[in-house]
Amino acid sequence: MNPDRLHSVLRGMAEAGIPQMVVSDPSAIYYLTGKWIHPGERLLALRLSLTGRHALFVNELFSVPKELGVEKIWVNDTQDGAELLARSLDTEGTVGVDKSWPARFLLRLMEVRPGHRVVNASAILDRLRMRKDADERELMREASRLNDLALARIVALLPKRYSEKRLAQCVPEIYEELGADGCSFEPIVAYGPNAAESHHAPDRRLLEAGDSVVIDIGCRKDSYCADMTRTVFYQQAPDDARAVYAIVLEAQQRAIAVVRPGVRFCDIDAAARDHIAAAGYAKHFTHRTGHSIGLDVHEAGDVSTANTDPVQPGMVFSIEPSVKVPGKFGIRIEDLVLVTDHGCEVLNRHDKALRIVS
Amino acid sequence: MNPDRLHSVLRGMAEAGIPQMVVSDPSAIYYLTGKWIHPGERLLALRLSLTGRHALFVNELFSVPKELGVEKIWVNDTQDGAELLARSLDTEGTVGVDKSWPARFLLRLMEVRPGHRVVNASAILDRLRMRKDADERELMREASRLNDLALARIVALLPKRYSEKRLAQCVPEIYEELGADGCSFEPIVAYGPNAAESHHAPDRRLLEAGDSVVIDIGCRKDSYCADMTRTVFYQQAPDDARAVYAIVLEAQQRAIAVVRPGVRFCDIDAAARDHIAAAGYAKHFTHRTGHSIGLDVHEAGDVSTANTDPVQPGMVFSIEPSVKVPGKFGIRIEDLVLVTDHGCEVLNRHDKALRIVS
Repeated sequence: MNPDRLHSVLRGMAEAGIPQMVVSDPSAIYYLTGKWIHPGERLLALRLSLTGRHALFVNELFSVPKELGVEKIWVNDTQDGAELLARSLDTEGTVGVDKSWPARFLLRLMEVRPGHRVVNASAILDRLRMRKDADERELMREASRLNDLALARIVALLPKRYSEKRLAQCVPEIYEELGADGCSFEPIVAYGPNAAESHHAPDRRLLEAGDSVVIDIGCRKDSYCADMTRTVFYQQAPDDARAVYAIVLEAQQRAIAVVRPGVRFCDIDAAARDHIAAAGYAKHFTHRTGHSIGLDVHEAGDVSTANTDPVQPGMVFSIEPSVKVPGKFGIRIEDLVLVTDHGCEVLNRHDKALRIVS
Repeated sequence: MNPDRLHSVLRGMAEAGIPQMVVSDPSAIYYLTGKWIHPGERLLALRLSLTGRHALFVNELFSVPKELGVEKIWVNDTQDGAELLARSLDTEGTVGVDKSWPARFLLRLMEVRPGHRVVNASAILDRLRMRKDADERELMREASRLNDLALARIVALLPKRYSEKRLAQCVPEIYEELGADGCSFEPIVAYGPNAAESHHAPDRRLLEAGDSVVIDIGCRKDSYCADMTRTVFYQQAPDDARAVYAIVLEAQQRAIAVVRPGVRFCDIDAAARDHIAAAGYAKHFTHRTGHSIGLDVHEAGDVSTANTDPVQPGMVFSIEPSVKVPGKFGIRIEDLVLVTDHGCEVLNRHDKALRIVS
């Protein structure tokens, strides 16, 4: 286990009055152990205790390196892993669990250990993971560098007039060519009115002249995630869409401009949102301005009206305002930013000026 | 909502003494409403009550058809959705939740409603979903028909000697050409010794003469999943691998031969496992023989030593024994079977005779 990170988690547990914790999120386990284990529906749990009695409960179907620096407790498919874990807990005290732990394990643990108070303790690890250390910052830069290159290649394919789905299917191949490790999420490609839908899944629609083209892609490189969006136009850009493009770009740049340590996430959100509202499109900007990112593509720390936490150096999050005009078009522009001591570094370099591809 | 399915769920709740239930699994919600909603980290919950007071709690970012046949309660990102849900519960009685419900919602619900007993009630829906109705059977057949066609196309690409990763990346494109809706899981392609690893992720290894090639792929078509595996050889098949191929094929055929209503899942597992053990490869067959499948690629109902439930007409599951010889090769053969009144229908037709591709 990474001694510095483990030490920080244990300190966080002590401060929160949580003497023992069940870490189950594969990303959090990677953060602490340097090893990815994807358990599917099976149990995976790193039990941490202020007494120093740590252990990893893992199904024997998964290969785990010997030198993991933590006791391993092997579970097989005929055993009740959650019960074994529950019985191994220290007999007293609050138990922290991860926010994503499935009910089938959590309820079983509570059944076996009815006397324990169980709390969602993910914030302890989430807060640590938000502030990327020097190595992590370099990995985030590299993932976004590759993502910029990939985006340029996708845009270059537009003249082929592939369907959204076909174009989205080119993304993994391009990442492979560039040496990335895969996608950090399912690529989104949306043409014209499809780009105005929330959570549009690429379909068989073909590209038409005048379409706005939203391309939202992210790769994974050495375990860290990229995520960016560009909107370009095919053959021509209608006047109303041009005007909205300028509004969204200005909103995005205003949000980036206010990022520095101490500014609240909600202030960054407001910088984008207020500009879009002033232009009369408030109701067409329907989502948060951004989200934190690292080992997971969505990490704790929303750039939203509801998040009043101040940002700190080392945090990395997206800034991705949009305006969606139902039935017509959608415009979204997204970069990742890394908070520095006095401002921020924008991790994406791909040009944001309005572009018409023919 | 589908009235028959809803009625069956409510009957199951009554029998289990669970007057209200929180259904959160997107597949279960699709099963009842015919609508896919993928909430990501946001709350999605269908509250069912024996009093008839049903409601769908859904974030306003998601589009939901008006004619869903259930009251919709819209939640936005500034609201505590789990608290709203908890406060809306009937004031008394056990609350059933889905096995996959994340701790962040479950613990919040228990905090707001400390007097309620909360239980994992997924089995009520899982048991219903296991027995496919006539429409579902037809959809399962069609998904597997397309999967057979896709597998043949993948095998035909072997002479190109792509890396595992590159070959795996061809799968989505082939599904697209065949009219499937995408992958039901990340395609697995493993050559030679890589095929002996559990949970191998396709890497940059290139195909070599004498390699066993494990291809484990599944498409999704009209919401239902396929899943099959074939193992072929490239240019030549070493004698030891040929012998193991015959053992695995015989084990798979023996397991298929015993499937009929009333036979226990563990008996099907034993039919395959005993044959492999008798041939001296017990420790190289490290996993369950199969899993149920439908709207999810892994559904409740393992074909394993631990599952003593009898199979019933309409159930669909995989039969996929393997022998993995570390450092050398792996052989796996997998079909889906549908339990009929007197036996089973094998949904995959792709040939299983030993095949050497050159």
